[in-house]
Amino acid sequence: MSRPAFNERLAELVRTRGNPLCVGIDPRWELLPAAIRGRHDNTGEGHAHAFTEFGLHVLDLVGHLVPVIKPQSAFFEACGPAGFTAQAAILKRAAEVGALTILDSKRGDIASTATAYAQASFAVWGADSVTVNPYLGQDAVEPFIAAAREVRGGLFVLVRTSNPGSGLFQNLTCDGRPLYQHVAGAVNDWNRGHGDVGAVVGATHPRELAGLRGLMPDVWFLVPGFGAQGGSAADVTGAFRADGLGAIINSSRGITYPFHPDDPAWEEKIVAATQRAIAELQSVMP
Amino acid sequence: MSRPAFNERLAELVRTRGNPLCVGIDPRWELLPAAIRGRHDNTGEGHAHAFTEFGLHVLDLVGHLVPVIKPQSAFFEACGPAGFTAQAAILKRAAEVGALTILDSKRGDIASTATAYAQASFAVWGADSVTVNPYLGQDAVEPFIAAAREVRGGLFVLVRTSNPGSGLFQNLTCDGRPLYQHVAGAVNDWNRGHGDVGAVVGATHPRELAGLRGLMPDVWFLVPGFGAQGGSAADVTGAFRADGLGAIINSSRGITYPFHPDDPAWEEKIVAATQRAIAELQSVMP
Repeated sequence: MSRPAFNERLAELVRTRGNPLCVGIDPRWELLPAAIRGRHDNTGEGHAHAFTEFGLHVLDLVGHLVPVIKPQSAFFEACGPAGFTAQAAILKRAAEVGALTILDSKRGDIASTATAYAQASFAVWGADSVTVNPYLGQDAVEPFIAAAREVRGGLFVLVRTSNPGSGLFQNLTCDGRPLYQHVAGAVNDWNRGHGDVGAVVGATHPRELAGLRGLMPDVWFLVPGFGAQGGSAADVTGAFRADGLGAIINSSRGITYPFHPDDPAWEEKIVAATQRAIAELQSVMP
Repeated sequence: MSRPAFNERLAELVRTRGNPLCVGIDPRWELLPAAIRGRHDNTGEGHAHAFTEFGLHVLDLVGHLVPVIKPQSAFFEACGPAGFTAQAAILKRAAEVGALTILDSKRGDIASTATAYAQASFAVWGADSVTVNPYLGQDAVEPFIAAAREVRGGLFVLVRTSNPGSGLFQNLTCDGRPLYQHVAGAVNDWNRGHGDVGAVVGATHPRELAGLRGLMPDVWFLVPGFGAQGGSAADVTGAFRADGLGAIINSSRGITYPFHPDDPAWEEKIVAATQRAIAELQSVMP
């Protein structure tokens, strides 16, 4: 395949669009604009159709402004089989508006099973990259790396997640340093020479971000937790490399639900929230 | 809901069927009987229909002999949306033949996202239980526990997996003992008073099984790695409680693919492989 490597495509998009914002598409029926809900049944299949309509509309509104789009697979799965058709439609539209995609499904399994998940992510759903859980070890991550390299895609391995309870295992001191730093070291090794193995590092741990940047100097970070989860633009500064690249900052609810469902101005509010998040991030990028 | 708790249903089935075997349904197009492949297209949708035909047939052959059936979600996902219709059909048939089901999808995410995965597992796909990855911590597991308790279902948390590379993180020494033992301690706490939070513990680590049984005296173990992955019946003895219960031993490829695709006697071979696995396990149960 002749297209550039994943990290080059990512860097080029962050440069040309001038910001590192990732718009997370986490569709939930009760938060959708009432106007959209009114056109669909309150069933799994109806939800899937409503999620498609909403997601495509969000992409038409702001997909050209940002480098990356991240659908959250769980909300699509909760619709039943039709939800995956919606997920695929949104990933396809993201590509059409020139954004790279991260399928946030946090998959992790071994051997041929991991290969099946990787094939689903890249070949079936059409994502450019996927989030992967490292707990199962080397042979759980390698099939994702192999599949990503075949299509010049990438992956983002969970290192330090943004949730309040993330420390239960990630913060245990293992052989002198926290578990998440061991995972960071492995990610740094897997990424070397290819640039396609990224790290998920939450914005809710600002003091750790700079340390993790030191452990993974060239790795691309996907930083969740900005916005609705409490992380500010100032909190994510440590994620960037000195060249201003190397980090993708995600906001989901802050961008796709800055309105009451009955608000007729929901489209304007999505655009305004996106522009505001972009400006905030531009003000802290190195 | 008036049905008995998950651990009681599990214990009752192991007692009445007289064995702890879990039949894993990991359908792969190239391993299916040629007779089934010949009736379907070599496309994602065709694979899904073939997986349905094969999976339902396996359940009709041996579903009444064993207490538990475990579909591996990755292989269904690799078919596209129709794969999930196949997965749901197999889970439904398993219930009809009186077996409990474990949806092996190794999900893990936080807060409302974890709730969406849990709702998908129990309410949408209809599984009795689901495998869960613990790396994200307390608030990644709790939504699965809450959803399981609503339907008197259960979950199995990955503690020590059966793959050769599982030690990379699981074996790190954290505060004086391996990471997987910390996870075991958390599972033991989550399970207390309810009996619905199990542990995935690989048969490929026989010496650790007895130690893990000591750390989780009342927890139900799901033990993969028996059969094709190299674990023998003798290797799993440490998984059982003294009363002979407490462990479900999975075999996937060894039971569903003991034949060459062109073998016309594939049905007899599935039944024979199941009976042989049951006899082997009965010989080592306490």
